[in-house]
Amino acid sequence: MEDWAQRILSGDVRAMARAATAIENRTPQAVPLLKELFPHTGRALILGITGPPGAGKSTLADQLARSLRGENISIAIIAVDPSSPFSGGAILGDRIRMQGHHGDAGVFIRSMATRGHMGGLARGTLEMALMLDAAGREVILIETVGVGQDEVEIARLADVTAVVLVPGMGDDIQAIKAGIMEIADLFVINKADQPGAARLEQELHAMLSIAPNSHGRQIPILKTVASEGQGIAEALAAMRAVKARVRRDGAQLWQLRLRELLRERLLDLFPPGDLEAAAREVAERRVDPYTVVEQWIARLAQ
Amino acid sequence: MEDWAQRILSGDVRAMARAATAIENRTPQAVPLLKELFPHTGRALILGITGPPGAGKSTLADQLARSLRGENISIAIIAVDPSSPFSGGAILGDRIRMQGHHGDAGVFIRSMATRGHMGGLARGTLEMALMLDAAGREVILIETVGVGQDEVEIARLADVTAVVLVPGMGDDIQAIKAGIMEIADLFVINKADQPGAARLEQELHAMLSIAPNSHGRQIPILKTVASEGQGIAEALAAMRAVKARVRRDGAQLWQLRLRELLRERLLDLFPPGDLEAAAREVAERRVDPYTVVEQWIARLAQ
Repeated sequence: MEDWAQRILSGDVRAMARAATAIENRTPQAVPLLKELFPHTGRALILGITGPPGAGKSTLADQLARSLRGENISIAIIAVDPSSPFSGGAILGDRIRMQGHHGDAGVFIRSMATRGHMGGLARGTLEMALMLDAAGREVILIETVGVGQDEVEIARLADVTAVVLVPGMGDDIQAIKAGIMEIADLFVINKADQPGAARLEQELHAMLSIAPNSHGRQIPILKTVASEGQGIAEALAAMRAVKARVRRDGAQLWQLRLRELLRERLLDLFPPGDLEAAAREVAERRVDPYTVVEQWIARLAQ
Repeated sequence: MEDWAQRILSGDVRAMARAATAIENRTPQAVPLLKELFPHTGRALILGITGPPGAGKSTLADQLARSLRGENISIAIIAVDPSSPFSGGAILGDRIRMQGHHGDAGVFIRSMATRGHMGGLARGTLEMALMLDAAGREVILIETVGVGQDEVEIARLADVTAVVLVPGMGDDIQAIKAGIMEIADLFVINKADQPGAARLEQELHAMLSIAPNSHGRQIPILKTVASEGQGIAEALAAMRAVKARVRRDGAQLWQLRLRELLRERLLDLFPPGDLEAAAREVAERRVDPYTVVEQWIARLAQ
């Protein structure tokens, strides 16, 4: 275990890949390993990239990766994909994303499937980011499909959260969920060469000026054409500027993360079969739900 | 306690009001009372009404209430409002909603404030519905503002979930979140006399025809002008038809509800101060989060 951790700390890519698999499969080795690695975390810049399907998040992440590699910065990309209902595996997968960076050890790419985890973000995304941070990756890009809860959860993981929008599909300001306003540290208007980009920008400005929860934050709006590499350097500079300005309170973030960890671990203590059986009894009114929960909690104390 | 429960079971409105307050304030009497009442639940038709702000949900709920009262059906309305950041109380409040039904004991109305409960639906909404069900209310309308997570949570509570949309604001199909598609048992196009209603209906039809998660469900689209009382009888008939057709699996619903109850109860075991202190230590890398969570769980077993 110590040897494995040492190899990760020295940046050994095979050891990292093995750790990523252990984390994703939740093998018994994952937690002891993460304990060893934890004191060495906290140095990476974690960038969250979210937005509606089709906004070009993957292309943007890819271009940001290129730009960072041009500065010789070591990076990792964690792509959180919705699970395929058929295979249970990630829909997009590593293969497509890998193509452009094949053979570059400075880019570590991993797709994670959401596996129906309530809340959306793949269980283990935090662990994956911590491991890559300990391994010395300087920038970690986390890309999530913005449907459901992922956008809110990503703000718990990332130092800087970029919300990617495109003209046309996100044209109507109503399309932007109330929740997204609270988590965006910056907006990226991608495909900014398409009609409607200027209108989208105006609407965003209008929305930001009246947003009740911006807390006086300045939220930059950037424009990119990721497929052509346009605006990438500026977007990256803006993300770094946000990081320098914002200095998120680590203790506050960790409070949210600890709650989440505690929640998952506690629910793990109850076998799903027990839950099913109890739910059936409750549905038939043979027992009330409060007694069930009290009995479970009492069982913990045995 | 038994006497209190008996009075609720006999439909005593004062006893119900006292129970509603106990549930909302989470007083120690609430859980023993709910245990007494639980065997008498499961008879009410619970209708969930959700949708974006401004869609006219309150007006629709009010008109449905009138229509049901016309059939001499006893009802309850639970309005889940976002908390006022200033008073902590519900923004809209009972007063406005009460006006039309003042003096009618067949309508029991209660507003609940969300109080920043993660996930949106007021803690205690399930409890409130169970109490009102035990009290013999035949139909319980639960109305939530559709921002954030409420729409998904309401599907856990309601027998039938209606998503209310309006032309113009919800004009662009992008405005409808992916999540809402999964929970809608039926759509209501309110303010259907306004321009854009036909287009919205077409877009909904198009969306439903390609929706990957409709599981072959037939999802009716109704049109109302709630402020004029138009289309209300049809909407109500459609909701009842859904209830008759769908027959939700109670055991499956209770599995979700039990998880939620368990989650809340378990987190209540940990004082917020401890969480804060631990988060600070973790943020400073003095301890790792896994050790913290393990220690907490071990403490439960003492």
